[in-house]
Amino acid sequence: MAEDSLIVPRTLSGFRDRLPKEAMAKEKLIECLIGVFESFGFVPIETPHLEYADILIKQGSEEIQKELYRFKDHGGRDVVLRFDQTVPLARFITQYKNELDLPFKRFAVGNVFRGERAQKGRYREFTQCDFDFIGSDSIACDAEIIQVIYTSLAKLGIEEFTIWVNHRSILNGICNHFGIIEQKAIQNVLRIIDKIDKIGAQAVGDELSETLGLQKHIITALLEAISIKQVEASDEFFKSIAYMKKWNQELDIGISELEEMFEILKDLEMDKSVYRVNFSIARGLGYYTGIVYETTLNRLKTLGSVCSGGRYDNLTRTFSNERLSGVGASIGLDRLLVALGELGILEGRSTSARVLVVCMEKRFFPYAHKIAQSLRSSGIYTEVYPQAAKLKKQLSYADNKGHEYCLIIGESEFETHTMTLKNMTTGIQFESLSLLKTLEIVEV
Amino acid sequence: MAEDSLIVPRTLSGFRDRLPKEAMAKEKLIECLIGVFESFGFVPIETPHLEYADILIKQGSEEIQKELYRFKDHGGRDVVLRFDQTVPLARFITQYKNELDLPFKRFAVGNVFRGERAQKGRYREFTQCDFDFIGSDSIACDAEIIQVIYTSLAKLGIEEFTIWVNHRSILNGICNHFGIIEQKAIQNVLRIIDKIDKIGAQAVGDELSETLGLQKHIITALLEAISIKQVEASDEFFKSIAYMKKWNQELDIGISELEEMFEILKDLEMDKSVYRVNFSIARGLGYYTGIVYETTLNRLKTLGSVCSGGRYDNLTRTFSNERLSGVGASIGLDRLLVALGELGILEGRSTSARVLVVCMEKRFFPYAHKIAQSLRSSGIYTEVYPQAAKLKKQLSYADNKGHEYCLIIGESEFETHTMTLKNMTTGIQFESLSLLKTLEIVEV
Repeated sequence: MAEDSLIVPRTLSGFRDRLPKEAMAKEKLIECLIGVFESFGFVPIETPHLEYADILIKQGSEEIQKELYRFKDHGGRDVVLRFDQTVPLARFITQYKNELDLPFKRFAVGNVFRGERAQKGRYREFTQCDFDFIGSDSIACDAEIIQVIYTSLAKLGIEEFTIWVNHRSILNGICNHFGIIEQKAIQNVLRIIDKIDKIGAQAVGDELSETLGLQKHIITALLEAISIKQVEASDEFFKSIAYMKKWNQELDIGISELEEMFEILKDLEMDKSVYRVNFSIARGLGYYTGIVYETTLNRLKTLGSVCSGGRYDNLTRTFSNERLSGVGASIGLDRLLVALGELGILEGRSTSARVLVVCMEKRFFPYAHKIAQSLRSSGIYTEVYPQAAKLKKQLSYADNKGHEYCLIIGESEFETHTMTLKNMTTGIQFESLSLLKTLEIVEV
Repeated sequence: MAEDSLIVPRTLSGFRDRLPKEAMAKEKLIECLIGVFESFGFVPIETPHLEYADILIKQGSEEIQKELYRFKDHGGRDVVLRFDQTVPLARFITQYKNELDLPFKRFAVGNVFRGERAQKGRYREFTQCDFDFIGSDSIACDAEIIQVIYTSLAKLGIEEFTIWVNHRSILNGICNHFGIIEQKAIQNVLRIIDKIDKIGAQAVGDELSETLGLQKHIITALLEAISIKQVEASDEFFKSIAYMKKWNQELDIGISELEEMFEILKDLEMDKSVYRVNFSIARGLGYYTGIVYETTLNRLKTLGSVCSGGRYDNLTRTFSNERLSGVGASIGLDRLLVALGELGILEGRSTSARVLVVCMEKRFFPYAHKIAQSLRSSGIYTEVYPQAAKLKKQLSYADNKGHEYCLIIGESEFETHTMTLKNMTTGIQFESLSLLKTLEIVEV
């Protein structure tokens, strides 16, 4: 083939590969999360990456419509690559209603596609990790989703994080109390309030005044009410805001449900300081209807929320008239992976094997493979270098990939049915070891 | 929303959902396979589902060209959903050559898309599980791929299977010996011979005569040579066919390499009857160049091969002039899943949790969640029913999903800090148990 007919290897803008070190870290992360989900009785389901356009787009926001990977397939069908895992869940639940026993709790780990403008840290294909509790209004579900978030991050070894909790009825109730009644007006207020962590209370106040023409004293009172935003949940805290329940029914419902959730959480084995009430959190306007939450890492605040979610009223509205509420959250896997890297929690190896068997001559291969098989039977992940290359080359391969031990088979080892073990961290070498002795050292 | 504006929930023809029982079985299958791959030092990599069309299509067969999901994205780029994981691997290897230390062994578990005509058991999106050894000509790699196949199926609990092995040079050598020299003529012969298991030797002979005009005595000799197809590999077998090595250099290379591989495998702990030489296996015309193999399940022969592969000469040919050979195999995950179901090896539960905590009143929730947390800390996957529904309803939920135990919290259990445990298989109930006693029973 002529040089000029070669194709330049490259990925599409906004798409990415993962090299082994990162791919392995991601795999371990997913494995850990699935373990937590399943320990709570969440089960996996699987839906296709590609769906009929009409199925997916009706529930997508205006923003998402512009970002769709939508095309006609060879059969002329109007199809779309999924942009989230929630709309497919809604379709799935409606389609298999009779086979699923409600309440139904599922998780899904999968890739979604959005043609966003390419920018640093944002990709057009990314992995979402969702878990949802469908078909129950019970606050016990909300409490469980919070437990799953807590357990997941704790299990990943993240020590300092905060789960910020709010209730959409509290926001509605506060707005109502200050004379903002229309749903559209409330949404405008919430949209502006949502920016408070980014631009500060002063700027939010100015924008509320300029854009919506709210009066100064109302803005002040509104900002004071939502200034409850760092408070550790406790019996005392709920006592201290009990007076707000009397403002109106919305506030009564919102605060009472937060209290009910806290009743379930408060005696559990978990660091209570993690769990904070924050009246300024709005999330997903027009989607969430009950308790909502975000999760930030204390040592990486600028990263934003790594796990958000809440309760929604009517998941399957585009497919069925039967009302089905649910509560769920989504872990941004790629963001979490970046976080684990920055916190130094990720393992830094490029190999899955702990031991590399190094063979000095081709005729020792049968012996080398036999030893490797014995190590694997004892649960020790073992790789055999496939060629009788120079010792230096094989050792540097192990060095680069991160094997903990090299097991060297030369003439004398082959003759005496022994092996030489080199600890790649300390450099210490053990010669003429039996298999048993080798297992003993490596198994420690 | 008016009834008539509802969307009918449905998937595209040739695409599918998986309900929890099946999705969980698939997850466990993948987990098991990844464990085996990693125990041999294979590492995961990740490439996008969507790529530039020119990257993928040049290495695709003519058949595949017609089946592509190819479209223009919003940026006007000509893009394709990947149809396999081998071409992306070739791109990947070329692109990151300098960061990867060769030999490089990777696995990939992912979905691929082919717009084949929809038919029973064939899907347009399906999961492939590939593992490859890139950048080494050593037969030790081929031997290792066979070990990975063996270990994978054994670990999955499949007891009777056969790995059929051949070498492309043996087929070429046999053809040459009988005067069939041209590469194109050889490929035609192999294409016909490949059907021998489906249509029988007689029909293959007829087709060789009709289509290619081969003489009768040549056909007879050819069919006799490739009739070595059920033979357990052994030193005696290789002795018995040693005379064929003298026919020509191709046969010498082919048989010698099979022997070399057998030398590595023969002393390993594995059932030797699994491993059979079959001179009629051709596989992937124009792609594989060395040792090739297929794997069938003895009790499900009609299912076809569940794991096939072999050695190829020049993986990265469309991207680079540097020759890089490799050896690898692909497990058809969906087919294997069907097989495990038919062999009765799959677990039949719809829940990941072993225990369901059943709460008779809402006010017992904090206690119930605390107990559930204790069980989970002891490694017992535990679900809490989220509502204080009737006992019968909660027990039937557990029955349907397959929980092993129900842990019932009623008034008296709540008051005395105890619990009632019901074994869902035997129906036996243990009353007024302490947490410790409960753990003891469930942990057995």
